[in-house]
Amino acid sequence: MLVETSHPGNLGATARAMKVMGLSDLALVNPKCAIDDEARARASGAVDVLEAARVFDDLADALADTVLSAACTSRRRDLPHPAYTPRQAAPEMLKLAQAGPVAIVFGSETFGLSNEQLMQCRWLVNIPSNPDYASLNLGAAVQVLAYELRSTAEDAVLPLPDFELAPHAAQEALLVEMEKALVEVGFHDPAHPRRLMPRLRRFFAKAGLEKEEVAIWRGIVAAMKNPGTPWRN
Amino acid sequence: MLVETSHPGNLGATARAMKVMGLSDLALVNPKCAIDDEARARASGAVDVLEAARVFDDLADALADTVLSAACTSRRRDLPHPAYTPRQAAPEMLKLAQAGPVAIVFGSETFGLSNEQLMQCRWLVNIPSNPDYASLNLGAAVQVLAYELRSTAEDAVLPLPDFELAPHAAQEALLVEMEKALVEVGFHDPAHPRRLMPRLRRFFAKAGLEKEEVAIWRGIVAAMKNPGTPWRN
Repeated sequence: MLVETSHPGNLGATARAMKVMGLSDLALVNPKCAIDDEARARASGAVDVLEAARVFDDLADALADTVLSAACTSRRRDLPHPAYTPRQAAPEMLKLAQAGPVAIVFGSETFGLSNEQLMQCRWLVNIPSNPDYASLNLGAAVQVLAYELRSTAEDAVLPLPDFELAPHAAQEALLVEMEKALVEVGFHDPAHPRRLMPRLRRFFAKAGLEKEEVAIWRGIVAAMKNPGTPWRN
Repeated sequence: MLVETSHPGNLGATARAMKVMGLSDLALVNPKCAIDDEARARASGAVDVLEAARVFDDLADALADTVLSAACTSRRRDLPHPAYTPRQAAPEMLKLAQAGPVAIVFGSETFGLSNEQLMQCRWLVNIPSNPDYASLNLGAAVQVLAYELRSTAEDAVLPLPDFELAPHAAQEALLVEMEKALVEVGFHDPAHPRRLMPRLRRFFAKAGLEKEEVAIWRGIVAAMKNPGTPWRN
């Protein structure tokens, strides 16, 4: 997923970087440029991937069906989500890709991903780089991640996961409900949020919410608001 | 080492791909284009690497001082040299780089390296790729090799996590308190436990509870039992 990309050449380079490693599902979120002749030239033999790109107005829609989302970022954060190198992340990404769509999210050339966008993703991925010059080109970053996935896949046969991950939208809906319940019981004051929800969001990101667990947590949230609602699985 | 490169953009992309991974020694062998404005634009903040490139008339001269040379190629050969993936090659390259210059050699965009050029190198390096579309862009191939070297070099020293994990006893105490609260709000019936607590235990285990998060969850548990207890961090 490319978010707010502004250079057509990077759209093409991304399509080529993906196809050469066997990936094909490109999503453009609020793109700031068109798929033009420069994009097609840089895509070379991967124009098909470029032309088939799905376009979304915002990141939440693009992520809705995913079971894992990893934001590629070079910045260190005060309140980080789980952060991995591509090499650390690739085996788990490949494993979960057997359960549902896995997204790798890249920000704009100039600004990268905003904190708000990063927070929507479950993981951060930091590509190792020169601390004195960490300005990786967007297409090159896509190439590194795509290469790492293929290289890891060819190195190993990975076991299937034995559980079903919750789609992104289900986790988002749960966190909305949880916030409401925490306000209702007087624990959370949205006027003085004290980073409570970002911290809970990070906790859930670390855990990796499964479908079955959504039911448990929705039940707990409901019981918080309306005591006397028992757990039924 | 770039051999017979014909697109200035690839010279720039190569310089950037190298610098971002901490490499700086670029050699151009019989280049078929000049370092022009397009090359400088694509180099971005790595124009210094581009301008410092050494230029050679032929590959033998460029390789003269090296202690190891690896030819990057996508083709399989009838009479192959030792062939490795980047991941297999990187540790030995890094080791030998302490003894003398190690060269990674990339051919022209259209023809790659000739058999005669391949034979001058000690190793072949094959980047894993999609058998149906293996046309890796030159700059992207350089990025993959440069990334692999840095990634392998950094793997030797892993940074400490920047957060403190909660001790086992703190998580156990939290789960005891949480169970009591869930009983109190009528959600959990210990007479019919339905694996609720083992599931919550597993969820917390997946997340890896941190010290700061213990306080948040103890607060939520307290607010569940006694609504009106606000979060104070």
